[in-house]
Order: sequence, then structure tokens, then C-alpha cells
Amino acid sequence: MFRSIFAALFVLLFQLPARSQDMQIQAIQYTPAASLYVEGRFMPTKKPFQRVDTASYPLLPPAVKNLLTNSAGIAVTFKTNSSLVAAKWCVTKRKVGANMTAIAYKGLDLYIKNKGLWQYAGAVGPSGDCSEAILARNLGNQEKECLLYLPLYDEALSLEVGVLPGSKLEPLKDQFRKRVLIYGSSIVQGASASRPGMAYPARLSRMTGINFYNMGLSGNAKMEKAAADLVAGIQADAYVLDCVPNPSPEQITDRAAYLIRTLRERQPGKPIIVVQSIIREKGYFDSEIGAKIAAQNQAITTQVNALLKAGMKDLYLIKADGMLGSDHEGTVDGTHPNDLGFHRMLEILRPQILAILKKYPAFK
Amino acid sequence: MFRSIFAALFVLLFQLPARSQDMQIQAIQYTPAASLYVEGRFMPTKKPFQRVDTASYPLLPPAVKNLLTNSAGIAVTFKTNSSLVAAKWCVTKRKVGANMTAIAYKGLDLYIKNKGLWQYAGAVGPSGDCSEAILARNLGNQEKECLLYLPLYDEALSLEVGVLPGSKLEPLKDQFRKRVLIYGSSIVQGASASRPGMAYPARLSRMTGINFYNMGLSGNAKMEKAAADLVAGIQADAYVLDCVPNPSPEQITDRAAYLIRTLRERQPGKPIIVVQSIIREKGYFDSEIGAKIAAQNQAITTQVNALLKAGMKDLYLIKADGMLGSDHEGTVDGTHPNDLGFHRMLEILRPQILAILKKYPAFK
Repeated sequence: MFRSIFAALFVLLFQLPARSQDMQIQAIQYTPAASLYVEGRFMPTKKPFQRVDTASYPLLPPAVKNLLTNSAGIAVTFKTNSSLVAAKWCVTKRKVGANMTAIAYKGLDLYIKNKGLWQYAGAVGPSGDCSEAILARNLGNQEKECLLYLPLYDEALSLEVGVLPGSKLEPLKDQFRKRVLIYGSSIVQGASASRPGMAYPARLSRMTGINFYNMGLSGNAKMEKAAADLVAGIQADAYVLDCVPNPSPEQITDRAAYLIRTLRERQPGKPIIVVQSIIREKGYFDSEIGAKIAAQNQAITTQVNALLKAGMKDLYLIKADGMLGSDHEGTVDGTHPNDLGFHRMLEILRPQILAILKKYPAFK
Repeated sequence: MFRSIFAALFVLLFQLPARSQDMQIQAIQYTPAASLYVEGRFMPTKKPFQRVDTASYPLLPPAVKNLLTNSAGIAVTFKTNSSLVAAKWCVTKRKVGANMTAIAYKGLDLYIKNKGLWQYAGAVGPSGDCSEAILARNLGNQEKECLLYLPLYDEALSLEVGVLPGSKLEPLKDQFRKRVLIYGSSIVQGASASRPGMAYPARLSRMTGINFYNMGLSGNAKMEKAAADLVAGIQADAYVLDCVPNPSPEQITDRAAYLIRTLRERQPGKPIIVVQSIIREKGYFDSEIGAKIAAQNQAITTQVNALLKAGMKDLYLIKADGMLGSDHEGTVDGTHPNDLGFHRMLEILRPQILAILKKYPAFK
């Protein structure tokens, strides 16, 4: 008796809706995401899902230009009463790195607001260069506020958001206040978060309501002059420089002062927060890597201290000690944090960054 | 002056060793890993990196047989005084799932013992069906105890461990005591840990020193009769059944009692610990998924309670409440924990499992 009730319930719950869902899928209506609200661009751009119009910065190193096409930190916000949210999107043929999931590298990640907080609702990976996927379904017909993160490590060549026929789909503006630009390495860009919304600037934004902009540049946050000029020209209310892992100690010694001075001159009175390199887990056993990171952190500390001693104001240095915890389990490959490492990193970084920002009128 | 010292130091530290390392790489000497000590097999097997000789279990569903070829939970232990550890290995042509890294799916993960604790030392992904890679270098020439995890989601067709010429390389036996078999879903197998050593049975083993055996079977831990007979015939000191996520509520109602009773009969006096399904994050918004998991957990609770009421001894049920934390950030795709989710899961599971095991003489 109990079994047959269960069997009937099972059919009711899973079999019939599956068929009606197939019909729903055929009827999904798509809207170009560029017509919704696009977050995370540092300035208005011609390509809707690129952080910067790189054509306007001809002096940037080619690797930096290329990485700036990645949609790291870009998200689309909208509201809908559809009980299903889907997407069609295209990326390049680039191969997924071995230390990342395809969902993070080339996929999409949906959040829906629940009692004032952004809550994970669905993530999908690609099925080819162009993909179509349902992000979430059976959501009910109430109005929902949605935040859809784009691929961290690939270029989003196109994106459409799909809802059920007859549903409302509208832009949802200004979900985050103020702007904090984070210029940094692969760790900023999101290697190796498990999905786009788990990159640390995105998590910081959801945790604080402040717009943390992802200027992660994979292995190429090397403080070149042209990159420094770009960073200093981007309008934000505060600047985080998490770019110590990529340059050699010598490059840090050569380049950090120019970056920080230029930023100070062009953005007077705004906080500049420099973050030491996390201690790469590989460096605990590999004596060369250990020595390199120690030298990088020594070099940036020397540079920041010299600028402070020379009287520069509104400049801060956050140390990396203990940022990944003490059990050595916080990375995927000895260099890039996994979600556990990122969580621990934020437990150290977030209160220090917030304590600095709170000193400034823009964040009061 | 400071700059030129740095430049000289940089050349000394990074340029010259790089060249001598290239010569080291050419000279690496390989040894078949099967001649070292292989952990994680449930019984002696013909193929050295398979958990079970599936040919001996003709009644197993084909999907289960196929999944048992995956090297989830298999690790090789050895000691060496080589300052470099490398590997050559081959896997199948299977595609990496979008919710996992290639390192976890097809790669290798090395730990080295440090002051009595296993510590992460290096992980590598595949470069093709067959790969060669250095896991760690610059380790010094002291004797090191090593633990090398194999791919979680693919078959390791071959594996050789490489060390520098003239170095010692010997098997390292019995690093973990006793045996706890965990029969379960993709979550047990390791989706979506960032690397092989982050699968939760492997983390439990390193945390406790107890041998937790990974009988994760992706989406196919469905308690079929032949699978139940296999589980019940594997010699262990305790059994964890984390197999609620895969079967339908009706299948749980149909099959759980047979699995638990058979295990009880064939392994008298040993603890059987049943774990409810984690609440899939997708189910908070998707009402169908939410209802299905509630029904699965209701079904297993009913079955376990009926057996307890009928007088079965040494049977326990661990509830899933709060296992992934409260911020909804603990999964990669709404179903499979990321490393943050696994960490939280272990904070709940580990003390409960250990408290049960400690009641039994085998674990005292």
C-alpha cells in the first residue's frame, strides 16, 4: 500500500512534469542579455561583455589585452516572474585549464535574491562553443530578482536570457553600490573557484553590497606601465592591488612605485590597498618556489614602506600570513585557491578591506 | 645597487636551476607503481588500480561495473630520498565532466608526510590520454614518505612513479589502520572535489588515520541486490552507507532493508552508519528537487527506524541537516559539494562517525 502510494506520487512528481517541461523548453523565449543590465564593466564598452575596450589602449601588452576580453566579473541582472530561467551563450574554442571546472571557465552561474540576500540558484557548463541550458526551473511565478555571472576565463561572444512565454523579463539596475577595482592575478580572475559566482571579487560583492570589480589578468598582472596607466584611469572609489604573485621580485622593485604613484596622482584621496601574495602551498616543500614568494612579498613590502615613509597618504598593505588556513588543503594545484582556500582568504581579507573602506566618506 | 643585487639573485635562483632541472627531467627513472604499495582496493585485484575485480561479480549492473574501474580512493604509498617526484600515467579517452577539474577527474595528487601529518605537495592534470609530469621538485635529499592519489573519475590504465637517478624508491606499507567502507554516490566518489586527495573519504583518512575506502559510484549507488551483496561481502571494520542521493524514494523503500539486513547478517557486530542525502542547494528554489530529496530522506529514515524497531543492533542514522552550511555556497552545481561544502560536511560527519566507531573494540 505504502509502496503503491509512493509509486503514484513518484509518477506525479517526476514523470508528468518531465514531459510538460520538455514542452516548456521548446517554448522558451530569448532576449539578448545586453538589453538587460550588465554589471562589472570598468567603463562603457562596445562589446557588451568585455571589461574594457582594449582598442582604446594600444600600448597594453598583447597578453593583457587578450585577457581583458574574458568576461570575469561580468554579470547580468534582471527581474522576471518566469518559473524557469535559461540561457543561450557562445564562447571561444579555448581549452579549459586542468585546474578549473568547465562551469567556472566557460559556464554561467545564476543567483536569485532571497530575503535580501543573493542565493545560489543554478550553474551550467558549456556543451560546445555555443550552448543552451536551463539554469533553474520550478521556481514559481512570483517576481524574482536575478544575477547571472558570465564565464571567468573565456570571452562571452554572445548571451541571451530565456524565460517562459508570457513572462516578464526586465533589467534590474544598481544592485551594488560604489566601486572597488581589484587589479590582480589569476587568483583575482577566479582560478580556481568552482563556478563564476565563487570568484573572490564576486563573493565580496555579494557579502558587502559593494561593487568589487574583477580586473584579474591570469598570469599577467605584472604592473607594466601601460597596465598601470589603465588601472589609474579607471574611475572607482577604492583600489585593491592584488598583483604580487605574477611579477618577479625584480619587476616588483622596478614597477610597483610607478603603479602606486600614478594611481595616487590620478585618484587623489582614494584608498589604495596593496595585498601581499598568498603563500603558495607548493612553496612549503619546493624551496625555490618558497624563496621566490618570500622575495616577492619582501619586494612589495619594501616598495610600499618607502612610499609611506615618503609621506604618501591613503596607502595600505595587507599581509598574506595564514590567508589559506593551516591545513594546506586550500588550493587545487599549490598555487590557486579552491573554494575552501578562497573562503579562508575572505575571512582574512574582508574585515581588513572593510575596516579601511569605512574610514572614507564614500563608504559611510 | 639594490636592483642589481636582486637581478643577480634572480638569475641565481631561477635561471640556472631551470636549466639544471631540464637535465634532471631527462634523467628521471620510472618504476611501475604496482610494485609499490597500493591503498584503497577493497580486495586483491588483478588490475592493480581497480577497487574490485568486477569480473567476479557478473550480476552487477553494467553501470556499476564500469564505475568500479575508476581509481577513486586508490593511492600509492612509497618512500624516497629523491628531491623530485614525477609520474607517467594513462587514462581513457572519457571527457571531463563540466563540474570537475581535469586534475580531479584524470589527474594525480601527491602528499608528503610532515611532522606526522600528510601535507599537500603537488597535483597535476593530464596532457592527453597518456601524460608525464613532475609532481614536486626541490624537495631536498632527506627521506620522504609519499602518498599519491590516482584519478577520481577515470580508469588509471597505467602508472609509473619517477625519481632522480640513484635515489631510493621503496614501498611504504600500512599508513592507515582498520577499514571503513563508504558505499555511496558521486559525492563519495569525489564530485566535485578540486583534486583527488580532496574527496571526502581521502580527507577523512588523513584526518583520522583510519582507512576510509571509497566505494563511490557516481550516479549509480542505487542499492541494487547485486551491489548490496558485493558491499556485504567486502571485509571491513565498519560500513558507511551514503547512498541516498541516487535511488528514487520508491527504490529506497524497496531496497534499503535488503542492503542493511544482508550487511548485518554477513558482518555481525560491526557498525552500519547510514547517512541521509545532503540537501541539494538546487532544491531550495526548485520545488521538485526539494520535494524529491525530502522524500528520499523520509524513505531512508522510515526504513532505518523500522529495522531499529525490529531490534537490529549497531545500526545508526546520521541526519543531513546543515551539512553544507547556511550560505548556500557549498556546491559547484547545486548538487555536488565544492571543497568548501566538503569541508563543512566533514565538520558535521567526522565527529559523528568517530563517536560511533569509538564504541567498538576495533577502533579503540
